[in-house]
Amino acid sequence: MIDKLIEKIKELGNPTVMGLDPRYELIPDEIKPKYDTSNEGICKACLEFNKDLIDSVYDIIPAVKPQSAFYEALGIKGIEVLKETCEYAKAKGMIVILDSKRGDIGSTSKAYSKAYLEDGEFKADFLTVNPYLGSDGILPFVEDCEKFDKGIFVLVKTSNPSSSELQDLRMENGKTIYEIVGSLVERWGENSIGKYGYSDVASVVGATQPKELKELREKMPHTFFLIPGYGAQRRKSRRYCSCF
Amino acid sequence: MIDKLIEKIKELGNPTVMGLDPRYELIPDEIKPKYDTSNEGICKACLEFNKDLIDSVYDIIPAVKPQSAFYEALGIKGIEVLKETCEYAKAKGMIVILDSKRGDIGSTSKAYSKAYLEDGEFKADFLTVNPYLGSDGILPFVEDCEKFDKGIFVLVKTSNPSSSELQDLRMENGKTIYEIVGSLVERWGENSIGKYGYSDVASVVGATQPKELKELREKMPHTFFLIPGYGAQRRKSRRYCSCF
Repeated sequence: MIDKLIEKIKELGNPTVMGLDPRYELIPDEIKPKYDTSNEGICKACLEFNKDLIDSVYDIIPAVKPQSAFYEALGIKGIEVLKETCEYAKAKGMIVILDSKRGDIGSTSKAYSKAYLEDGEFKADFLTVNPYLGSDGILPFVEDCEKFDKGIFVLVKTSNPSSSELQDLRMENGKTIYEIVGSLVERWGENSIGKYGYSDVASVVGATQPKELKELREKMPHTFFLIPGYGAQRRKSRRYCSCF
Repeated sequence: MIDKLIEKIKELGNPTVMGLDPRYELIPDEIKPKYDTSNEGICKACLEFNKDLIDSVYDIIPAVKPQSAFYEALGIKGIEVLKETCEYAKAKGMIVILDSKRGDIGSTSKAYSKAYLEDGEFKADFLTVNPYLGSDGILPFVEDCEKFDKGIFVLVKTSNPSSSELQDLRMENGKTIYEIVGSLVERWGENSIGKYGYSDVASVVGATQPKELKELREKMPHTFFLIPGYGAQRRKSRRYCSCF
């Protein structure tokens, strides 16, 4: 799957991923008046806006990254919008990175993998996952990546202000937690390295920390990076960009 | 909310929480033949089994813990089963701990909190959350706990075999990661300590590690513990018990 993403980036000459985080306050005034402000109306407005955005960029941007939380916050109707958004983006040839930061003990991660990476309802190409539980919480996703030609992005160093509280802590051996997670990611991906030298086990590395980014780039030569916060994360009016 | 949980435990004289992880292969033979094996049939069988389990124990067990992953694995119909299960358990007077290990940057955690802790569709009393992103990924949940009289269980030390890979790492100052998370949890909870001395910011501490459990119990005097793996987690035929 990582090869497909890289080829799409090469084809379009653009390494940007469009975040799709539905927030009613950011829906344009052209769309809002078409629907009432019930939960159902809000969901319809969000779906129309997502489709408009996808229509506007599918031939210049390779991938979308819907943030699951904002759909879940709209309840089951919101989760239906997530499903339809994923389907719509895929039908337009875009790659879908479902940003859900899932992760649990092995048998439960396997269930999350079934939900999002197997060919179930959501049909994501990539899923973001959380490494706090260690290898047996991640390997069920890795196995399914091989089986279903999918990928994951593991949180290594996040872009939020307090990411340093745990991720930057330094071990007795001098390494930080995020460096240790980085080396685990390289290990988890070693059986799925594609023709461009990157594996299906990719990483989220916050670009608000350029020093760490440079360091990790050197230490994780086979890991593709998703870099949220590159540019627009903190600009209220447009929260729609992340970058590879 | 932690006071309500403690009072319920005292009232019933039982500190057990019943996990509700729907897996078709564990549905009893009395229920299976009533439904076909389509996704919808499986969902109906799971809901009936959940309701049977709740009916059987609501007067002896204080709380249920549905594991979100297994419902998500059944798609949107499965998430409807989750919602109905939460509603049914609450209507029977049980406390609902939604086990979903959510967590992200602040604005996204806020959306997860809206989904599960505010009075939205799911109406959980407690939510399990992941601390890897640090304080600003957790505080939106903490704020909503105060506002909506809810609680969270933060992962501190998990019960899976590879939990040691990150959680047991020792810092330069001699502390382990799980101890550091433990002290963050105490801090996050300091404004919500109830009449029994525990806060609404509770913890998940795997009982497969009794030494750590004892240590943490001493270091986290205001934190209530959810202890998965106490007894039945690895016994295939009954995966339905966790314990406070």
